[in-house]
Amino acid sequence: MSFFREHPRIILGPGDDALVLSEIPSRALVISVDAQKENVHFSRNFINLREIGHRALAAALSDLAAMAAEPLTYIVNLELPKDLGEKGAREIYEGFEELNKKYCISPSGGNVVRGDRISLTITVIGEVARERVITRDGFKEGDLLVITGDLGRSFAGYKIVTEPRIGEKLDSEEKTPLKEKFLVPMPRITEMLTVAKEIDIHAAIDISDGLGLDLFRAVRSTEFEIIVHSEKLPIYESVKKFSKCIGIPDWKLAVSSGEEFEVAFFISKNDEEKLKLFDFPLTVIGEVRASFKPDVKIKIGSEEFSIAGLGYDQLRV
Amino acid sequence: MSFFREHPRIILGPGDDALVLSEIPSRALVISVDAQKENVHFSRNFINLREIGHRALAAALSDLAAMAAEPLTYIVNLELPKDLGEKGAREIYEGFEELNKKYCISPSGGNVVRGDRISLTITVIGEVARERVITRDGFKEGDLLVITGDLGRSFAGYKIVTEPRIGEKLDSEEKTPLKEKFLVPMPRITEMLTVAKEIDIHAAIDISDGLGLDLFRAVRSTEFEIIVHSEKLPIYESVKKFSKCIGIPDWKLAVSSGEEFEVAFFISKNDEEKLKLFDFPLTVIGEVRASFKPDVKIKIGSEEFSIAGLGYDQLRV
Repeated sequence: MSFFREHPRIILGPGDDALVLSEIPSRALVISVDAQKENVHFSRNFINLREIGHRALAAALSDLAAMAAEPLTYIVNLELPKDLGEKGAREIYEGFEELNKKYCISPSGGNVVRGDRISLTITVIGEVARERVITRDGFKEGDLLVITGDLGRSFAGYKIVTEPRIGEKLDSEEKTPLKEKFLVPMPRITEMLTVAKEIDIHAAIDISDGLGLDLFRAVRSTEFEIIVHSEKLPIYESVKKFSKCIGIPDWKLAVSSGEEFEVAFFISKNDEEKLKLFDFPLTVIGEVRASFKPDVKIKIGSEEFSIAGLGYDQLRV
Repeated sequence: MSFFREHPRIILGPGDDALVLSEIPSRALVISVDAQKENVHFSRNFINLREIGHRALAAALSDLAAMAAEPLTYIVNLELPKDLGEKGAREIYEGFEELNKKYCISPSGGNVVRGDRISLTITVIGEVARERVITRDGFKEGDLLVITGDLGRSFAGYKIVTEPRIGEKLDSEEKTPLKEKFLVPMPRITEMLTVAKEIDIHAAIDISDGLGLDLFRAVRSTEFEIIVHSEKLPIYESVKKFSKCIGIPDWKLAVSSGEEFEVAFFISKNDEEKLKLFDFPLTVIGEVRASFKPDVKIKIGSEEFSIAGLGYDQLRV
């Protein structure tokens, strides 16, 4: 079984001891590892093997999106229960295909070992121009906070897939985009590459653990606070309806929802007009203020509350 | 907790979405991922957290040794049972320190997640000159097969650590080097870098699943067979004694033993004399012959047997 396709930068791919990539001057390689584990990140009761593959690769690629890096290839380490066999591995690899095609990438190495539960660790390798490396905390006072896509669908989709009773008040047309974002999310690679070409991005972060928590990770060692305006959050109407069903304010669901695979980034106020050039959703949801105490706050009407703890911290659970 | 040290090639390290490394012309980046899992690769009954860390990093670095690549840095993905807490993570990281110092490297990113059992996935990143990339199967007819270090200690050490009764006939001076190679193995990075400077290495392979099986992986798509001479295998006297205790021929133990973290490599016969230049153990144990059927054979006296199946295949177990 090989899903590898030739790539001009890959000198050695699958089947050897390591992946070997040629280097190019004035470029920088971006490497990130993401692990998805059965009964921690997903359950086989609710998500099939192709979706498990797709989600794991999307999660890994999302870290490249946050660096506005172009994906080159990836390495897959798979732990597979014996009952799934080679067919199981093949289905997981088939789940990579949509993303492979979209970004012209393919897996270039990895291992399969036996385990009790599925565990999928993906090392993604991408590239940026060396002078365009984007950190998490390069924002300045007065910078605008922009978010790709929309927030809350992933959590709502997760709930609807795992506890269908909860979504009873939504019709199937409303439910489909929620379930889709949970089951087969698309990382914002193309969006971030496009934005980075036109606008100087000061900082960016993948908010896969939730907007509140991940923004706090970006701000905690700085002398700034980030203000998020509740009424500006991009939330689908169906997510708002879902929020009502479960009795949580929609802004709270939006800033807490994990695995949205959106990117939060910071730009100069002068570049705000340029955001209108793009034909995909980008929303200014807040700004950076100087502060003696780093924090992330939501502004509702004239009141402000900290949302620094809202999200999903693996180690706290 | 940070064990990261600054490195001139690392633009962005721990704490951001990804590791970012500057690229250099005419060099090639070598990336490999290795996973070590509790109750698959080790048991906490027999090996402490520092040793678990050391072994996992040694295993990952061994893939770089097989490419004669210089290590640059690595990324650690750790799954940790709740009872181990931050102290557990720290001990595992402390286990990296001996190798960190030896190769001037440090971890530059990673994640910790909760799990039922310890699982340690390490992505190592190294570098070679682009024209010196070594594949597994670049050997030629008549090439000599050379092995670093010695074979069999790791298996013997594993048995002595896990079933002390088996080692009763060995005194403690004999047992120590066996246990050491199992518990705190050293990858052959320095050795392979040194050899590669002086000798043209045609092919090399990390034999962590056993000499027989891994050599077969290197040869199976070629028109060659590899002959290993039983009397030339570098085996400690204490390993020979241990073999007698358990009633297995020492050559069989040596070619089957996994996780030895030695490198098997192939050189031209003309370079044999140069091997004497080095002040570390290197042994010519065999040669490459043309063959219609790819195979790995051991020669005992005048007889030859296939050893292509001897070793540890994760998927077969």
